[in-house]
Order: sequence, then C-alpha cells, then structure tokens
Amino acid sequence: MSKALISLGAVFFAIGLMLIAVPVALAQTPTPAISPQTQTCLGCHSLYTPGIVADWQKSRHAQKTPGDALKVSAHERRISSETVPDNLKTYAVGCYECHSLNASAHKDNFAHGGSQINVVVSPNDCKVCHATEVAQYLPSKKANAHGNLEKNAVYSTLVDTVLGGKQIKDGKLLNVQASDPARMDTCYACHGTVVTVNGMKKVATKMGEQEFPDLTNWPNQGVGRINPDGSMGACTACHPRHSFSIEIARKPYTCGQCHLEPDVPAWDVYKESKHGNIILSRSDAMTWDAVPWTVGKDIQAPTCATCHSSLLTNPQGQVIAERTHDFGSRLWVRIFGLVYSAPQPKSGDTSIIKNKDGLPLPTAFTGELASDYLIDQKEQTARQSVMMGVCTACHSTDWTNKHFAKMDASVAEADKMVAAATGLMSQVWASKLAANANPFDEAIEQKWIKQWLFSANALRYASAMPGAPDYAAFHYGWWDLNNNLQEMQDWIDLKGKK
Amino acid sequence: MSKALISLGAVFFAIGLMLIAVPVALAQTPTPAISPQTQTCLGCHSLYTPGIVADWQKSRHAQKTPGDALKVSAHERRISSETVPDNLKTYAVGCYECHSLNASAHKDNFAHGGSQINVVVSPNDCKVCHATEVAQYLPSKKANAHGNLEKNAVYSTLVDTVLGGKQIKDGKLLNVQASDPARMDTCYACHGTVVTVNGMKKVATKMGEQEFPDLTNWPNQGVGRINPDGSMGACTACHPRHSFSIEIARKPYTCGQCHLEPDVPAWDVYKESKHGNIILSRSDAMTWDAVPWTVGKDIQAPTCATCHSSLLTNPQGQVIAERTHDFGSRLWVRIFGLVYSAPQPKSGDTSIIKNKDGLPLPTAFTGELASDYLIDQKEQTARQSVMMGVCTACHSTDWTNKHFAKMDASVAEADKMVAAATGLMSQVWASKLAANANPFDEAIEQKWIKQWLFSANALRYASAMPGAPDYAAFHYGWWDLNNNLQEMQDWIDLKGKK
Amino acid sequence: MSKALISLGAVFFAIGLMLIAVPVALAQTPTPAISPQTQTCLGCHSLYTPGIVADWQKSRHAQKTPGDALKVSAHERRISSETVPDNLKTYAVGCYECHSLNASAHKDNFAHGGSQINVVVSPNDCKVCHATEVAQYLPSKKANAHGNLEKNAVYSTLVDTVLGGKQIKDGKLLNVQASDPARMDTCYACHGTVVTVNGMKKVATKMGEQEFPDLTNWPNQGVGRINPDGSMGACTACHPRHSFSIEIARKPYTCGQCHLEPDVPAWDVYKESKHGNIILSRSDAMTWDAVPWTVGKDIQAPTCATCHSSLLTNPQGQVIAERTHDFGSRLWVRIFGLVYSAPQPKSGDTSIIKNKDGLPLPTAFTGELASDYLIDQKEQTARQSVMMGVCTACHSTDWTNKHFAKMDASVAEADKMVAAATGLMSQVWASKLAANANPFDEAIEQKWIKQWLFSANALRYASAMPGAPDYAAFHYGWWDLNNNLQEMQDWIDLKGKK
Repeated sequence: MSKALISLGAVFFAIGLMLIAVPVALAQTPTPAISPQTQTCLGCHSLYTPGIVADWQKSRHAQKTPGDALKVSAHERRISSETVPDNLKTYAVGCYECHSLNASAHKDNFAHGGSQINVVVSPNDCKVCHATEVAQYLPSKKANAHGNLEKNAVYSTLVDTVLGGKQIKDGKLLNVQASDPARMDTCYACHGTVVTVNGMKKVATKMGEQEFPDLTNWPNQGVGRINPDGSMGACTACHPRHSFSIEIARKPYTCGQCHLEPDVPAWDVYKESKHGNIILSRSDAMTWDAVPWTVGKDIQAPTCATCHSSLLTNPQGQVIAERTHDFGSRLWVRIFGLVYSAPQPKSGDTSIIKNKDGLPLPTAFTGELASDYLIDQKEQTARQSVMMGVCTACHSTDWTNKHFAKMDASVAEADKMVAAATGLMSQVWASKLAANANPFDEAIEQKWIKQWLFSANALRYASAMPGAPDYAAFHYGWWDLNNNLQEMQDWIDLKGKK
Repeated sequence: MSKALISLGAVFFAIGLMLIAVPVALAQTPTPAISPQTQTCLGCHSLYTPGIVADWQKSRHAQKTPGDALKVSAHERRISSETVPDNLKTYAVGCYECHSLNASAHKDNFAHGGSQINVVVSPNDCKVCHATEVAQYLPSKKANAHGNLEKNAVYSTLVDTVLGGKQIKDGKLLNVQASDPARMDTCYACHGTVVTVNGMKKVATKMGEQEFPDLTNWPNQGVGRINPDGSMGACTACHPRHSFSIEIARKPYTCGQCHLEPDVPAWDVYKESKHGNIILSRSDAMTWDAVPWTVGKDIQAPTCATCHSSLLTNPQGQVIAERTHDFGSRLWVRIFGLVYSAPQPKSGDTSIIKNKDGLPLPTAFTGELASDYLIDQKEQTARQSVMMGVCTACHSTDWTNKHFAKMDASVAEADKMVAAATGLMSQVWASKLAANANPFDEAIEQKWIKQWLFSANALRYASAMPGAPDYAAFHYGWWDLNNNLQEMQDWIDLKGKK
Repeated sequence: MSKALISLGAVFFAIGLMLIAVPVALAQTPTPAISPQTQTCLGCHSLYTPGIVADWQKSRHAQKTPGDALKVSAHERRISSETVPDNLKTYAVGCYECHSLNASAHKDNFAHGGSQINVVVSPNDCKVCHATEVAQYLPSKKANAHGNLEKNAVYSTLVDTVLGGKQIKDGKLLNVQASDPARMDTCYACHGTVVTVNGMKKVATKMGEQEFPDLTNWPNQGVGRINPDGSMGACTACHPRHSFSIEIARKPYTCGQCHLEPDVPAWDVYKESKHGNIILSRSDAMTWDAVPWTVGKDIQAPTCATCHSSLLTNPQGQVIAERTHDFGSRLWVRIFGLVYSAPQPKSGDTSIIKNKDGLPLPTAFTGELASDYLIDQKEQTARQSVMMGVCTACHSTDWTNKHFAKMDASVAEADKMVAAATGLMSQVWASKLAANANPFDEAIEQKWIKQWLFSANALRYASAMPGAPDYAAFHYGWWDLNNNLQEMQDWIDLKGKK
C-alpha cells in the first residue's frame, strides 16, 4: 500500500468522515437517491474498499429503491414483503440501509463513521424486504445446518474424528481434539459457524487505528451460520456480497462451492450430465437474471436453481413451479450424508430425529426407518409431482416416469451395497478386529464410511441428476462400491487369520 | 402443476389437437413454412413441453428448409445427401418431419395427435438428409459400442463384476447379478442400451391419460444405442435435442460426458493442456458454428472435434482435413479400454477380434498383437498423416514429429508398466493367492485392473493430447503406476508369507 | 493433406521465399508496418501454419509498434524497457523481430527463408522490450524450476522413483531408470527441460525437405526451461503463442495447467472458493486486458494473477500493488512441495539450501528451519502486507487479519499431521519394516509421501485461497490426513506382528 494512500486516508479521517463528493466512484451511480448515511459510508469505502463499492454500484440494490420495487407486478417482483418501512422506500438499498437494521438485536452493533453499524447482515435483516424467502429458508435443513452437525451426537463424533489431530506417543497415534480453525476450514465453512462478539478490539487499518467488535469464528458464510443477532443463515452463501446477484445464485458454480465429491458430488455429477453439457456450452445464450425465469425463452437447460428453487413459467406466463428458498421442498428422498437413503425429514432440524436404537438418524444401521420424523408417502408424492412438473417442461411424462423409476431402483441398490458393508463391520466389531467405542476412527471403519458417505452417494447422485455415467460406474460409483467391499473382505481375511 | 394448466390441457385435447395458433411461441419463428403436421405438434407441445419447442425454434432445423440447404456450396453445406424427398424440401425440419420417417421399420411408431409418430428418431432417419455422416458413423466403434461390450466375453464379465451387487451370506460376500438400472446408469449410458417396445401402455399426462409405446432401457442416448427400428447409434449423444447444435457438438463438454477419468480421461487431460487453457480462456473469441471450420479465422485452439471430426480449411479455403463421423478414422493406435495399447481395429465391431489365446482382445496378456484384426503399418501411417495435417496448421513439422515420437515412447512405457502388473498377477494366480476363475473379482485383481484401465490410460492420454503433466505425473499417471505395483508386491509379501 | 497443397508449396519454395502478397491473410492486419523479413515469413506461414499467423495478427504485437508502445503513460504501458533498438521501433512486432534477436547466443540459429532464425524465443529475447518483467522473473523460483528439481538430491531421487519403470525379475519388481519421454511428460513439462541443439537434420515438410536444428527435449514450455541461448524460462508458459495474451495469462486456467491436485491443488481449490465462484459465473463482466487492472472497474473478484502478479489500482488510479513477475514475491510462506511448510527462500535457486542434516530442504525431518536460507520475519511481514493490501481492496482489515490467522493455524496443523506420519516412518525404518536406502520406493513410504505431498498441501491451500471446504475436509484434506495415518498404523500392526 502506498504511503500516499495512507496519508490521504489520514486526511479523510481528520475531517470527520463528513459527506465527501466522490465523483469518480459515483459517476456511474444511477438515479435512485442515496441516503446521507450511505453517502458517508461511500465517502471512505469507495477509496478504501473500492471493490465492494463498485460491486454494489452495479447491483440492483443501487439501481432501484424498495418503493419502486414494490410497484412491480407479482411474478416479476424481486422483493416479497408486502410493505417496506417508509424510511427505506425512497433511497437506494445502500450500505447503511442493510448494516443498520434491527440494531438492538445485533451484538455486533458499534459506532462507526458517525452511525451505528452492524458488522454482519443477517437473514433477519434481509427479511425486511425479502420476507417470503426468509420465511421459507428458516425451517429448512440449510438454515439448521450448524445444529444438524453440532447437536447430532453421531455426526459430531464423525466431525471430531475426521478433523481431530494426531500425535505420536509411545510409538502409537494419539487423538487430539479438533481445533476451531479446522472446523472453520471444513464442515462449518458450509454448515455455518457460531459468530459471537468478544467485546471490542483495536485494529490498525489504512485509516489508522479503529475499534471494531471482535467476532468469533469469522469470516464465515455457511448456510446455517448462527449470527450475532441470534438468527440462523447467511444469504451471502449464494448471493455473494455486494452484488447479491440472482445470476450468480442461479449458476451451478455457486452450489458447487459445497456440493462436491466425494461426499456430496452434486456439482461433479451435474457438470458431466447432458444438462451440464448444454449449460457449459451455451451459458451465454441463457438469460440468467430474468424474473420469472421462463423455460425456453430464458432457459435452454436447467441448473441447480431451476429444479430446486426458482420461480419457473412457461412462455405463456403460466407458473410451472413456484419459487422456494427451502431447497429441499421439491425433494422427497434424501440421498447424501446418511448411512442409508431415507424420506426427507419433517423438520429442517434433523438433530431431533430418533431411530429405533435412539440414535439421531433417519434409519437404523439395519435399515428400518424412523418414520415418525419423516414425511409420509402422500407428501413424498406431492413433492415429486412438483419436480416432475419441472422435468416435463422439456421431457415427456413417460420419459420422466422412467427416469425416476430407474433412480429409485439405483438408490435402493446403493443402500444394499451399504448394507453389505455394514454386515462386514458387524463381524469386525463382533470379533474385536476393531473396537466400536468410536465407530469412525480405525482404518477398516473408514472403509465402511467411504461406502456410504462417498461411494453410495455418488451412485445415487449420478442416477438422479439426471445421468452421469462416469460417477455411476468408475468414479466413486459401482466400481468403488464393489472394490471397497473386496478390500474390506481381504483385510478381514488377512487380519483374522493371524 | 397448476390446475389451470391441466384444465386448459383438457380443452386442447377435447378439440382434437387441430391446428391452433400459438402466437406467443411462434412469433420468433423465421420464414420457412411449417408443415401442417408439425403445426399440430406445436399446438400442444409449445404449451406442454415449451423447452424443447423453443430449443427447436432457435435451431437451424427451424430456420432453413432442406431444399434451401441443398443450394449451399459444397463445403459450406450442412446436409450431405445429394437429394431430399420432395415432401421434405419446402418445410422447416420440424417435429413431424423427423418423428415420422421410415414408420414401417419403427416398432415404436404409434398414433399420436392425428399422426403416426416414432418416439425415437434414429440415425437411419437422420440419414435422409445427413447420408454421409451416417454412412461414416455406422461402421465405427461408436456405432458398435453396445455390442463391443455385450458381445465380448471378457468385457461383459468385467461389466458384470463391476456392476454386480453384493450381499452377506455366512459372513462372506455373495455376488448378485448386475441389474438393468445399474447397466443403464453406467456402461450402457455411454455405450447405448437396447431399446425395444413392450406393447402400448397408458400414461397419466398433463393432457389426461394417453397411450404410448412402452420402451425398454429408456431414456438413453448412448452412442451405440440399438433403436426400435433396428438401427445403431444416437446422433443426440453429441447433438442434443432439440437444437441438434453443431456448436455444442464441437465444444469439449460434449465429449466430456463420457470420456472422463478414471478410465477414459480425455476431457480431464484436455482441460489442463495448453489447448484446453486457450479454449477455456477464449471460448467467446471462437466461431463455433462456422462450416467449414477455418483455422485461424474461426479457431484459435483445437477442441476434440477439431482434431477428430470436423471439416477444417485454411483461410484460403483449402481443405486441411475432411469431415468424418468415424471418430477413430484419424487415429492409428488405441490407447484406452485395453490391457495393452494396440493398432486400431479394422472393423468397428471389435467383438470379432480373436487373439492367440482365443480371447476377443487385440493383444494377448503377454502382449502379442492379434494382427489379422488390426490395421497395418501403411494404414497407421496414412491416418497419422491426416492428424499431423491438423497439427501442422499451427505447429512446425518438426515440433509435431517430436511430439508423436514422445507419445509413442510413453505409450510403450505404459504397456511395460502393465506387463509388470500382469507378471505379478501370474504369480498370484499360479500360487493360488487369488482364484482366476473370474480374473476381475478379488481385491488384488482389481489393483491389476486399475493398472491398465485407469493409470496406463491416464499416462497415454496425458502424453498424447497434447500434454497434461498432472495426469502424466501424479493424477493416475506414473505415480499410480508405480505405487500400485508396490502395493501389489506388498500384498503378495504379506499374504504369501503367512 | 491434399496434394494440391503440397504442389503449391513447392511453387512457393521454388521462387525462393521472396516477398509474396498474401491478401486474404493480411486483409485484417492493422496499420503498423510489417518488416520485409516478417513479410517473407508470412508469405509462407500464412499458408502453411495459418493458425499461428492469425493468432499473431489479432494480437497486440501486430497492432502496435514498440515505438508507439513507448509513448504510453507509465501505468498503462505494456513494455517496460526505457528504450527499444531503433530497428525495432517502427515495425509491428512480427515473426522476424522476435525470432532473430541475439543470434550469436542462440545455438538454435539457422538459415531459413532467407534470414537467420532462432527456433526458440527466450526470456532473454523478450527482455528487449519487457526488461522489468524478465529482471523480476530470472531470480524467481519459477525461472530456477528446472534446477530446483534436477540439482536437488532429494527431489531428483523422488523424480527418479516416481517416474522409474518396473520390470519383473525372479518374481520381484526391478527398478528401471526413468526415461526422457517420461520426464518430458511429467515434472519437466512444468519445471522445464534442457533444450540443446544436436546439429542440423533434414525434415520432410509440406514444402519439401528442409534442414532444421535438431532440438533435444523439445517441444517444451516449462517455466524453468533451459534455452538454447543458455537463458532460463519460457514466457509462453503463461502467455501462449502467438497471441502472447495478457488476458489468457490472467485467467485461472493458465495457472491451472500445472498448479493442480494432488500435489499443488491451487486451481482445484480456487475454483470451488467464493472467488472462483464469482469469476466462473461472471467472467464476461470482467475486463481482462486492462492495464492497469482496476479493482471494481475491471475486476469483480480476483484470479491468481490479481493476487500474485498484476499491477492493481483503485478507481482513483492509486496503486494497490505493483506488477511483479516474481510470483512468490507477495508470499511469505511456502505451502507445497515440502515435507513441512517453511518461510520463502531468500534465493529462487532452492537447491543451495542446506538443513541441519545437510539436505537441500528448508526444514529437517524433525522440523527445524534452515533459517540461513529463508527470509526473516521482517521480510515475511513486508510481503504479507502487500498481499493484505490486495485483500483489503474488498475486505475489511479485521476480516483479512482473521483470515490469515486461521490460515497460519491450519498450516501449522498440517505440519503436525505430517510430523505424526514422519514419526511412524521413523519406527518403520528403525524396525527394518522398510529399507530407508531410498525413502520413496516402498508402499509404506509412499503413504508417507502422500501425507506431505498431497494431503497436507490440500489443507494448506484450501485454508489459504481463501476457503475451499471440500479440499480442507474430504478431498485430500483432513479426511486423508487422518485416514492415511490410520492406514499406516494398520499396516505396521499387520506387518510387525508377523
């Protein structure tokens, strides 16, 4: 950073962050008026964090006031709240408008640049304008993603085992507790951390020393982040700051930040499917930001958002599927992260599930469903019907039926391959070839984990979305399902015969 | 699906699928006249499957009649048949024009919307306008891809072993026959299924209950699909419905649906090569749909299609390489799917090959070629000369010579690394550490499969196309070739000494 | 290749490669004059290698003379030399201008088409106009990349072991020396080969037989290539011929030719990070060739070049980071290719390092730093400050601080996981379960290599750039770090107890 920049910063600071004309940066700003507070923010931030200022200036938030946004017809409207507070209606949705909401709930609220500012903008803040989306999101598995790991004894043991360190003591490996950085880098990067405030601290910035709230487990943009205002979720997981773009959220790269092999190979499978082939080849022919999103007119092939979230219409304007921000609400079966597939849970909080053995899993290790906690056949059929409505925008009903029948069969076969591995483990544990105190921490146990967490998932996804022969065959799929069983059997033979 | 949509559908059905004006959807339709039958199709399908209707409307099929297409000069023409039946000449190439051809051969022909319609459009139908492409395709390995697995005793055993299920019986793994869904998801998704007709069946659609032919192993778009008219192949494997785009077929994502690691890492290798680097960086500067495809003018770097299929010219209009739809016809050596590399086969039907041990493989396990079934040196040289003509459109002759000399050496080295693994297996089988009744079903045997089916292929591709150091070094390449041998030796030591 | 083309070539050759009008190819050429020598080159090459001619014609080299380029203001200028030889000032930078420089140093100089031509253009040639970039590059680790493998006894043993062949003798695997093709395909494809001249040889070309210098280890574009003029490096590794595009060099696919999993998963990690998500989604909204590169105006999210190389300014034109072609100069810690992480080396020639055991490694196997050869804390802080200047163009200072604190912790944890594996190996070697004469050639030793060369690197990159949960968790990261240790322990138990 140049010295010139630092001294210029000092000048800005000295004059008290008053309203400053920033002609270069604001020249591109469109018609909506900018609130005095946001103008103050821009006065410094257009110089010190120009990237996010420019990102915002090009965004819809900078180009349309909530008041004008409310006047748009229902299906084309991008804000779902029926009304918006008067003080927000006539200004662009700027820095201050979002970073000052619900201040009393925000433990991260602090005095900055003459205003009271929240560091973290939460879904509870976004819902002022986007009420329906937040209402759909909150009961979802995504919003509950932090607790669904942390409050589930099985998964939290798995997390601790996968992320726990190792040291050598007396020639043996010794387990070390998983650290906060390890958690932030891995599971909770997607699932969301708990962001709390440890008082204030001084930070040396380009503008000199300043005081900021000291946040724990930050930065983080996990979908189930626990925010300093107590709310759950992070809209920026998919709508990145500070464009909050609908285009980016609809592109498969966004889901591909977390839904990846080996445990959740959704993006991997998608990009080698026919759908992925068309989208990757013809992305520039799609209209990525149209609301509603019209099949044929805007969309040549579906992305993740098309099938799982967006408001879709046909060219006549009739609704094919309503928008949802509960991304599991068009799904009937869960195919990843589980020992066996199972119907979707009734509640997005899956830590409350209890199977017949008292474990927080939707099936027993022997396969029986914890049906009280899972959606029934009627609901499964209703959800599948919505999804098939999307498919049949391009495919015949019979094609679609046959696709899902094949997928059902493959999901069931994947479960059987897991059951075979579980059967081998039962022997291993019974014969004390491994200790089942922690079922996840020995080499042979980790082969069993691979069977359900990696290989079975790959086969299920490859069959479902909507065909990825490589992942079904050799890339974690059938090849690994069989090879892994043979390796387990081979180890049992070697170890057991000694 | 909304109730309004269903009832509107009923109205359409009630009026007998007669010609309906669909102004919204057809407003974009260009000048060619649409046949009355296709207009009937569009009447319903623009409402019920709007995605494929819009896809077609934007396609060349909707924008140019075969009659006009025939008037284009030879190298710029996109249809290769010298003549086209009169009844097809003056209409856009619409739904009816393709789905009604050769009806008597089509077991999937049925009465639908007032016409007799084939569900599956086959290469035998496409050849009415695209005769040369189909004539090139039919004798190719791709067209024969179904039988090349199914009719080959070695490969069909491998398929059964990889896809076979497992159950536990008396504490041991029990093999279960591979299922049809498993076959459809994996090998035959690319190689093509056998699509037959099991009579008619009723399907509940958005337009009420209708009767359709009940197709087996459907949906499928494998390159060697056996169609209900008895023909082989699926043009839609690369030219996806209903745009049948030449642009998509030329983009590497298309080949990347099937030619993927670990067994066929062509796309994986390509995308990290210099060619891939340039194409991924500058795709928007390429002209993807020009016919002929002109080096320099349209093409900055080659894709799969450039080297293996397309009609290429220089900017002066002189032909660099003629178009071919026998994608192996510019190749002299086979580098994947085999125990050892071998010259290309004379026939696309590789199930007829017999090596000295009577097996349908181009080499014996000891490496001797089944030369009677393979192209000779003269033909190899001729094919390499065509490929070098493509390379030298950008590279010097010496650069190109040296590249292929290096590739030849690396292919030979990969074969030696496989021979070493085969040597270890000979010991394993001789000493009964594994049973060779099925040479594919034990853990140690699967290490041997990895050596030739995964690692050796990766090295060969990485050396050939035209340099992917990661796949040659650590990503299945030399690292795995050596590590796998050490693991095999290690297992033999552990197992054998007991 | 058509016969017509060959005979036309003969005509060209017969008239002595004199100046030929090539109206088709040159029609697009812009205003700069083309030197007579380059016109001669184009006379033949526009016909015989039209791809590279067209590539050049569209490039800046064809569109601006060095004389005009010198007149551009400092930050917008793309040539860094203060002056350029007069004979180069007024012509486009064409074939002859680059391929004729410093002829006396070039052992690959030869008579061709009436001029004396160098086959290989080296950094020493490029520096005539791009002096600063070459001066920055030459002392870097990249320029020294060949020797950093070849002259380092540890790494050259590793290379030989990874690339060495295997044959079976007396039922045992026998090591075979790594071949030149194997070296060219793998390590030295990225690190660079030694290109020397073995006299002249005759080559049959489209224009008949011609004589060319016979180059060894060619073609190659590795970053540390030793050129026939004795210089080190290859600018074309990132600026591909013959566009020498700044756009391509700035796109992440370019770095992704070499910086790939499993050993250097930079591109893999980047593309699933938030930065990668935005770039892959919005590449068409970036301005890829602007000089300087302006945050906000041109850049919505960073690529590899943004953080590691490019001249960055804010929208007010103030410099955020100066351009560098020493790509490690904004880095303080080395996180890949090492047993343990270490501060960056003082010299780009890392083969001169000696640790306390006399090995050319920046740490001992027990972890102690070879501090004499590594940058000190002050230099580390200075470099980090430059990088943080880039981060804070979009992120707050506190966000950035916390990110790097987390990364530091994760890098240290990765080192501990490697130390645990090294501890197990100490036992293995001490108890003779493996022979440590070559520490890289047995199966158990290769598990140890995986721990540091693959898995620890993945965790470090995933934490650093700037968050890729998949690679930190299950994709080579924590999962593999733990599972690999368990597999090692398991093997020791099996093997040791016999």
